[in-house]
Amino acid sequence: MSKLEAVLERIDADLDESLDRLFAFLRIPSVSTDPAYKEDCQTAAEFVARDLESIGFAAQTRPTGGHPVVIGKYANGAPKDAPRVLFYGHYDVQPVDPLDLWKTPPFEPRIEELPGGRKIIVARGACDDKGQAMTFIEACRAYKAVNGSLPLDITIMIEGEEECGSKNLPAFVEAHADELRRDLVLVCDTGMWDSDTPAITTSLRGLVYEEVIVTCADRDLHSGLFGGAAQNPIRVLARILADMHDENGRVTIPGFYDGVPDLPEDIRADLKALNLTPEKFLGQVGLKVPAGETDRMVIEQISTRPTAEINGIIGGYTGEGAKTVIASQASAKVSFRLVGDQDPKKIREAFQAFVRARLPEDATVQFSNFGDAPALRLPFDNPALEKARAALAEEWNRKAVMMGAGGSIPIVGDFKRMLGMDSLMVGFALDDDRVHSPNEKFDLKSFHKGIRSWARIIEALARPS
Amino acid sequence: MSKLEAVLERIDADLDESLDRLFAFLRIPSVSTDPAYKEDCQTAAEFVARDLESIGFAAQTRPTGGHPVVIGKYANGAPKDAPRVLFYGHYDVQPVDPLDLWKTPPFEPRIEELPGGRKIIVARGACDDKGQAMTFIEACRAYKAVNGSLPLDITIMIEGEEECGSKNLPAFVEAHADELRRDLVLVCDTGMWDSDTPAITTSLRGLVYEEVIVTCADRDLHSGLFGGAAQNPIRVLARILADMHDENGRVTIPGFYDGVPDLPEDIRADLKALNLTPEKFLGQVGLKVPAGETDRMVIEQISTRPTAEINGIIGGYTGEGAKTVIASQASAKVSFRLVGDQDPKKIREAFQAFVRARLPEDATVQFSNFGDAPALRLPFDNPALEKARAALAEEWNRKAVMMGAGGSIPIVGDFKRMLGMDSLMVGFALDDDRVHSPNEKFDLKSFHKGIRSWARIIEALARPS
Repeated sequence: MSKLEAVLERIDADLDESLDRLFAFLRIPSVSTDPAYKEDCQTAAEFVARDLESIGFAAQTRPTGGHPVVIGKYANGAPKDAPRVLFYGHYDVQPVDPLDLWKTPPFEPRIEELPGGRKIIVARGACDDKGQAMTFIEACRAYKAVNGSLPLDITIMIEGEEECGSKNLPAFVEAHADELRRDLVLVCDTGMWDSDTPAITTSLRGLVYEEVIVTCADRDLHSGLFGGAAQNPIRVLARILADMHDENGRVTIPGFYDGVPDLPEDIRADLKALNLTPEKFLGQVGLKVPAGETDRMVIEQISTRPTAEINGIIGGYTGEGAKTVIASQASAKVSFRLVGDQDPKKIREAFQAFVRARLPEDATVQFSNFGDAPALRLPFDNPALEKARAALAEEWNRKAVMMGAGGSIPIVGDFKRMLGMDSLMVGFALDDDRVHSPNEKFDLKSFHKGIRSWARIIEALARPS
Repeated sequence: MSKLEAVLERIDADLDESLDRLFAFLRIPSVSTDPAYKEDCQTAAEFVARDLESIGFAAQTRPTGGHPVVIGKYANGAPKDAPRVLFYGHYDVQPVDPLDLWKTPPFEPRIEELPGGRKIIVARGACDDKGQAMTFIEACRAYKAVNGSLPLDITIMIEGEEECGSKNLPAFVEAHADELRRDLVLVCDTGMWDSDTPAITTSLRGLVYEEVIVTCADRDLHSGLFGGAAQNPIRVLARILADMHDENGRVTIPGFYDGVPDLPEDIRADLKALNLTPEKFLGQVGLKVPAGETDRMVIEQISTRPTAEINGIIGGYTGEGAKTVIASQASAKVSFRLVGDQDPKKIREAFQAFVRARLPEDATVQFSNFGDAPALRLPFDNPALEKARAALAEEWNRKAVMMGAGGSIPIVGDFKRMLGMDSLMVGFALDDDRVHSPNEKFDLKSFHKGIRSWARIIEALARPS
């Protein structure tokens, strides 16, 4: 029996104890946003530190401007050519309101068996992120128990303010850059493709959000008197916005696609094999025809391709009935989702130049910056990615989907920006986990096979490339 | 001395008495909207009826659902081939609020001499419409005094509810169609081009006003999750609206220009000679480049050409800051100013078809009708038009401008629709007359030469074509 098989057997045999430990963790009401739970957050941090110590980590709770961060270090015995990893998770949980919608108290975890035999762990934090974080810690525990040591240099950072914006974490990371700067970040706070298909979130799209205000006449005009001769800012704005996409759904702003990576053919083929049909994805909101680039699959349009969206528009008379006015101003909010190496600053400048190039002489424009963030992407050639995919495929008998997430996980951006570290995001959440809602749950299968998955990934990362 | 010259001399000699009569009329506070002035409206109607009787008209005040209408008929002695005319004016006036802004009481008419010697008649109704209506009546008086009779079959209708929407007049016109249906309507309720240049308002633009609501997804979506794949109704709407005009400012809706008359070359040349520069017209509101059809002069764009304007637009998030939403709906209010024989029904249908032809599969559209009215136009070949132009040119030593008005005078549409009658609109108001505002005035020159102008027009209309 190989070492890995022994670890996996240990995980299976130890599952009830793993659940006991998770339940003990879940019973601590570590709601980070509510000052009433401040001590509980401290308790949760200490719980994690003690647990890490029990498997050989040198662990401490470290103070921040808010709730403490738990840092556990395991350094002895790792081969020099294996990547040093930083695992990130969080011990804090969302508030539980509205409490009356919970079937059982949120901090009294239980196993529920659904019709058909599916078992779920129900509690606040069961998935986000106590359950997910514990999949990694339990994998370490089993590995250590079987082998007497871990095969990697592992630092574990479990923070306590993710649910209130991680506002003290960037300063902490910056202050402890040297000890936190490893070769790779592992994150367990994302989801699976579906309950049978694992996923690696390889990219988080970036964002540029801009407001554009077009002004023509110095006052609102009567359309009976001025109509036909006076420039209409709504018409100007409509034309600019209409120009942003061509007939094939491609964004026409010059340079917009600079830095957008081509998908490797094999990854594209994998995405295609998922067969995320327009009916399946768009059907849930009453749509059926993808509106993005016509030569791209839906799954590319929502994850690996950049977008330009008009999030809002207003101008002129918008009340009931009719008013014959030509407005002085019209404005729109426009946002861009970025991927790959698209530069937010250049995208913003290119958009502003695009607008200005289309302004008639009688129109002026003002812009307001409502935020920008670059996209984050695990490079497809990162050796950890292939290893993790292979490990996940072994566990689930399915290829792991390489997912792009539309939103962002701010700390992942901070790791990249401050420490130059890429993040391998593997998680076992499902779409129906009711994260942030009453009756949050985590599938027992996600927990169990999540632990096994991490054991396989740890083993794979330790193997020579 | 010709008959006409004698009439004009009589007008000049009688000006003080004409003013006395006008002042007596102006002293009656015939505010039609305020029930407190109901008896004053009756008094004003009787004043007009008695005045018409004094120059040989068979005159009566006639009841309506509101204030009475004065009808005066002069039928004896007119040659059979001369047009029978219906003169329209109104004896009611606007309210005087805010009273404290009047330099002198609004119903105590006076002559004020401005720096430079310009004399003005100041009072509520001095221009709109007592002063204007009296130019015609005084012309009849002088003509009758000199010649013993009028050369035309003239019916005068002076109503009392124009300032509150003429709401009882259409029913009155319909009920008395036979006696009111003449060959031509004369209206004195419009303006001059400037204080030296007379004008004939030959067209009133029509209107089609439509709201268009585009719906895509069945709920608002998160742009991080759905952005790129879900159809965005603002994008759909922007594209449709942007398509409505081509690069030359021409409306692209198929059939839109059906029924738009070509300006006769001489009239176009006259308009050109007015030299209404973009600076002069648009400069007053901070603009300088005409936004309409590039091959048309500003004066054509605002008067003789049809327009498509976006009067309002709204969709998505329009509050402060940023929200990453893809809206379910977006809507716009769109209006069309019509000229010539453009058919409001066809324009509406063509617009709706234009929108539907541009809808992607995932978008639906709803329309709301906020009104339509055809354009009104005095045909350029109406013989009265040339006669009136010649008569005005004689009086003012300037060609009369053929003006198109952006707005509408509802009763003019009713005359056309109910009685099939065209209206010759000649008026002597100036832009600075403060109509509807405190210190309303009418230039003494407008009053005096207005009387002379009507005398010349009456004479011209009576001459064989």
